[in-house]
Amino acid sequence: MHKKALLRKQLNTQKVDAILITDLINVRYLTGFTGSSGYAVITKKHAVFVTDFRYEEQSVHEVRGFSIKIEHTKRSREIRNICDVYGIKTLGFEEHDLTYGFYRKLVKRKIKLRPLANSVESLRMIKSPKELACIRASIRRAETAFKKLAPYIKAGTTERKLALKLEELLKKQGCKTLPFEVIVASGPMSALPHAAPTDRKIKKGDLIVIDWGGEYDGYCSDMTRTVLMKGANVSKQREIYYNVYEAQKRALEAVRSGIRSADIDAAARNYIDKAGFADFFGHGTGHGVGLAVHEKPVVSWRNKDQVKENMVFTIEPGIYLPGFGGVRIEDMVIVRKNRAEILTSLPKKLKCIGT
Amino acid sequence: MHKKALLRKQLNTQKVDAILITDLINVRYLTGFTGSSGYAVITKKHAVFVTDFRYEEQSVHEVRGFSIKIEHTKRSREIRNICDVYGIKTLGFEEHDLTYGFYRKLVKRKIKLRPLANSVESLRMIKSPKELACIRASIRRAETAFKKLAPYIKAGTTERKLALKLEELLKKQGCKTLPFEVIVASGPMSALPHAAPTDRKIKKGDLIVIDWGGEYDGYCSDMTRTVLMKGANVSKQREIYYNVYEAQKRALEAVRSGIRSADIDAAARNYIDKAGFADFFGHGTGHGVGLAVHEKPVVSWRNKDQVKENMVFTIEPGIYLPGFGGVRIEDMVIVRKNRAEILTSLPKKLKCIGT
Repeated sequence: MHKKALLRKQLNTQKVDAILITDLINVRYLTGFTGSSGYAVITKKHAVFVTDFRYEEQSVHEVRGFSIKIEHTKRSREIRNICDVYGIKTLGFEEHDLTYGFYRKLVKRKIKLRPLANSVESLRMIKSPKELACIRASIRRAETAFKKLAPYIKAGTTERKLALKLEELLKKQGCKTLPFEVIVASGPMSALPHAAPTDRKIKKGDLIVIDWGGEYDGYCSDMTRTVLMKGANVSKQREIYYNVYEAQKRALEAVRSGIRSADIDAAARNYIDKAGFADFFGHGTGHGVGLAVHEKPVVSWRNKDQVKENMVFTIEPGIYLPGFGGVRIEDMVIVRKNRAEILTSLPKKLKCIGT
Repeated sequence: MHKKALLRKQLNTQKVDAILITDLINVRYLTGFTGSSGYAVITKKHAVFVTDFRYEEQSVHEVRGFSIKIEHTKRSREIRNICDVYGIKTLGFEEHDLTYGFYRKLVKRKIKLRPLANSVESLRMIKSPKELACIRASIRRAETAFKKLAPYIKAGTTERKLALKLEELLKKQGCKTLPFEVIVASGPMSALPHAAPTDRKIKKGDLIVIDWGGEYDGYCSDMTRTVLMKGANVSKQREIYYNVYEAQKRALEAVRSGIRSADIDAAARNYIDKAGFADFFGHGTGHGVGLAVHEKPVVSWRNKDQVKENMVFTIEPGIYLPGFGGVRIEDMVIVRKNRAEILTSLPKKLKCIGT
């Protein structure tokens, strides 16, 4: 009810009679529907969810607060019908999701359309107590799985084997889907922030960046830990680790309701810059997490907006030395009035592995 | 080269100076790039692939036949620059992929745009020998994993445990990603064609529909087998199994170059109709498989187009009795001149499990 009421406020400000929600994550957020084909239309007085016959039974179980309509004709014609039935003259739509091709089909049906940006995304940024509970549960699953991975991290195993094992452990914790393919990047590969696991064997002296997430009732978690394989000369590895550790700590300490995202980013970035690694931290400090593993807000130098209470995002600075290796440490936080509540509980002291 | 040449033929017929490819599967098909951010522009003389700094190294390894450009400004501005550099006056784009929001951004940059449909999809339907090899390898992985699943299928286990185990076995075969979440649907759940695995325990007399796929170098496979748990009275289960089996056989026998998709569908559907189950086969008979697990052609009563040599698609009729259970048998085929080459080699005789 609350979500629908907030969305209905936008009907006036956006000068539309109804909003068509096609982004499936937004559909899930509003209606509860978890399937892969459906959309919602919200007017001042009505809220309807539409899907096809394959999802009839599922939608009855899942959808709350919306009447359910099974579509028996082409989608654009069904939407035209809905406009007629509910007296919708101007229909707002999600411009980030609707394709140009489908837009044209609606235009041909003589529907007056108005593009909208961030209608539901702006609501999704602020998490409800129920959502926070799901996110916490998603983090717990991810942490439990990671703890069980420990005995498998050893010299001679491969990145792919470790990634596979962690995915298996996550599924065994109950995650129905994984928010992204687990990243295990070792040695020089760890210098690539988005490395996919390879058949490279783990060696002495390797930094290993492990970036993974869990799922609980659709809600994602996202975390990164970097471990070190013991080796003869690992002083450089230790140096960059502790710089990332300290930078992350500063960003975490900066978080509070009202601070600008850019200032949280700066807290980590300034530390890394001063340590002499300014050129080796190429990405933003964090991103929102919820039903999507990457959602608003963006925590980077580009975002001057203030963060608000009950936003959830990651804090994940890193240093990446090409050809050598990299370190990233990533926690999830809830924004509280005067502080961050850090949700990730896995230790962050550098873990050295091997005999 | 061949793909680019075929696409360039469309420049004239579509009256555009260049085509912007944004659908990431189409980008992969044309360039080889496997990352999650990039696009391609093809003119009569030039072919450029654009990505951001995160994928610089990866694109150098992967992209063939396209010059690589790393974008340092907003995407819409970069595309405007490319239009200026290559003298592109009218730019075709993929209307099924480009969002309305991004279309508007390009319009604001004063780029003259023309929507295109199926530009790359029409090429992707016909598989090259190299693509066929990948698809065969993808099927082998899926089949090997399924054979290893056999000892785990027993009364008392759950759908979810079986699905999880099969996913694990697929990954162990080398599949980097899975084309879709494995479906294991037992007893009454098997009557839902798109059921997600639940914690329901496998019981005597259950039909179990298992629908899964493998991956090899980006190419998908997709197959379904239905097994029966031995039980006291399973004559109904056997009856629907053999009707689906015979219907599938007829559709496979109908496949040859030049037959209409609708006629392949009819071969299966007529058999099921005559057996008295006309109301219980609610989906099409098949779909193309390649870099996407669902691609063109659609094999259903709606598609009157002829199939052509070297198309690859599924043949997967089913009968679903609500509240009771269902059967689906799915193979993949290559269209040959006078026949189907059946790629899936797993046995199709009804397998009865249990003592």
